Amino acid sequence: MKPERPLILVTNDDGVHAPGIRALIEVMKTKGDVLVIAPDKPQSGMGHAITINSTLRINKLKEEEGYSEYSCSGTPVDCVKIAVNKLLPRKPDLCVSGVNHGSNSSINVIYSGTMSAAVEGCIESIPSIGFSLCSYSVDANFDACKKIADRVVDKILANSLPEGVCLNVNIPNIEYDKLNGIKICRQAKANWEEELDERKDPMGNSYFWLTGVFKNYDSGIDTDEWALANQWVSVVPVHIDFTAHHTIPFLKKMEL
Amino acid sequence: MKPERPLILVTNDDGVHAPGIRALIEVMKTKGDVLVIAPDKPQSGMGHAITINSTLRINKLKEEEGYSEYSCSGTPVDCVKIAVNKLLPRKPDLCVSGVNHGSNSSINVIYSGTMSAAVEGCIESIPSIGFSLCSYSVDANFDACKKIADRVVDKILANSLPEGVCLNVNIPNIEYDKLNGIKICRQAKANWEEELDERKDPMGNSYFWLTGVFKNYDSGIDTDEWALANQWVSVVPVHIDFTAHHTIPFLKKMEL
Repeated sequence: MKPERPLILVTNDDGVHAPGIRALIEVMKTKGDVLVIAPDKPQSGMGHAITINSTLRINKLKEEEGYSEYSCSGTPVDCVKIAVNKLLPRKPDLCVSGVNHGSNSSINVIYSGTMSAAVEGCIESIPSIGFSLCSYSVDANFDACKKIADRVVDKILANSLPEGVCLNVNIPNIEYDKLNGIKICRQAKANWEEELDERKDPMGNSYFWLTGVFKNYDSGIDTDEWALANQWVSVVPVHIDFTAHHTIPFLKKMEL
Repeated sequence: MKPERPLILVTNDDGVHAPGIRALIEVMKTKGDVLVIAPDKPQSGMGHAITINSTLRINKLKEEEGYSEYSCSGTPVDCVKIAVNKLLPRKPDLCVSGVNHGSNSSINVIYSGTMSAAVEGCIESIPSIGFSLCSYSVDANFDACKKIADRVVDKILANSLPEGVCLNVNIPNIEYDKLNGIKICRQAKANWEEELDERKDPMGNSYFWLTGVFKNYDSGIDTDEWALANQWVSVVPVHIDFTAHHTIPFLKKMEL
């Protein structure tokens, strides 16, 4: 009997038609049977949002042997929930999200719809990986990403991942041959310094755009920011137990 | 010279007019100067979403000595960003979020707008606490929550919190005198088993509501779920370093 091909769930946050997810789909089709469900519009910055106060639409875009593709009106996390609970015939062997147009390194993991989809896969006990390219350009070249996704996915399909852990993979925007390799890192300590860009509408009332500048406060050479700045692909293992276990004794002493 | 009163930022995800935030505001006014900025509509389940693809509106609702109140068209995390970067005269001494109408224990920390606001406060290096009552009723009684918030906030204003850690406080829906006390816990291992409730619109096309059943897989007596089931207030320290540090050696050996 022919061994069953791996079943792979693909999603993203830039929307089902983004070049990044097209690159990822191309690679995943060489690895197994693929189900794609991704937002029908850009959902960047949606974090771990789910749709509970409004309704969801699901639209089948394509179905052929070993491949099906859907769009969804909801968030990236909605897409994973819908795939697992409605569309997939069984629990998939892998969930991949991306390739995101733009970095999701360090604290961006928390704002990123791409990474939140991978985290949701992890909550569902599926080995899950988010891929991001450090370029926001629509014309970005995903060739290096495809080679990295190919390598990483082969290893994870062979070795799986520890329970409760998914991977945040960020790829510098340079040619594959210029990359130093893949580095396992910790999340750098960084945040955004926001700026609110105030404008006036035609009625003279104020409205705002949220913008900001990314600030890295971490000079550690074991961080994802260091790796990316030095032509390494960064891989951060991300877990879903948010408990700060090391602070429990301190808090117990505080006698709240 | 009169010592400066603490400056306290208050937000939530149920919206600025929800009874839960009104209860929290009442207590915070006894502790210091208060700035409230909360969503102008319910934002439950928004997780760590931020508004980057559309504009934001900010509306001043009240201003009096030591107190000001705003609504915002964005998410709970937007509210914290706007407060810190536009509305507050200095970094606040405390950020409190809630009181949420409904539990945010265990994995709900990741979907919760209430807790995401507290986490954002933590990213901004502000001691931050999310409060939730284990009742979804609009008529819920917040008397016990007010007493718990009073106790916890006094302790945190006096002792602060470790850098990079905020608190997830969940309060059983019983009278204050029936509570066993406050227990420092870890996040229970749990998730949601989703169900998609399919319906037909007047044109005969399908749409869906995301619903589900909460499943606790963790029988540990050191978890928040155990505490809440046994009439304790649960307090989980939540951190913003999502790196699964313990798995780095395993991943390094995998030679991605």
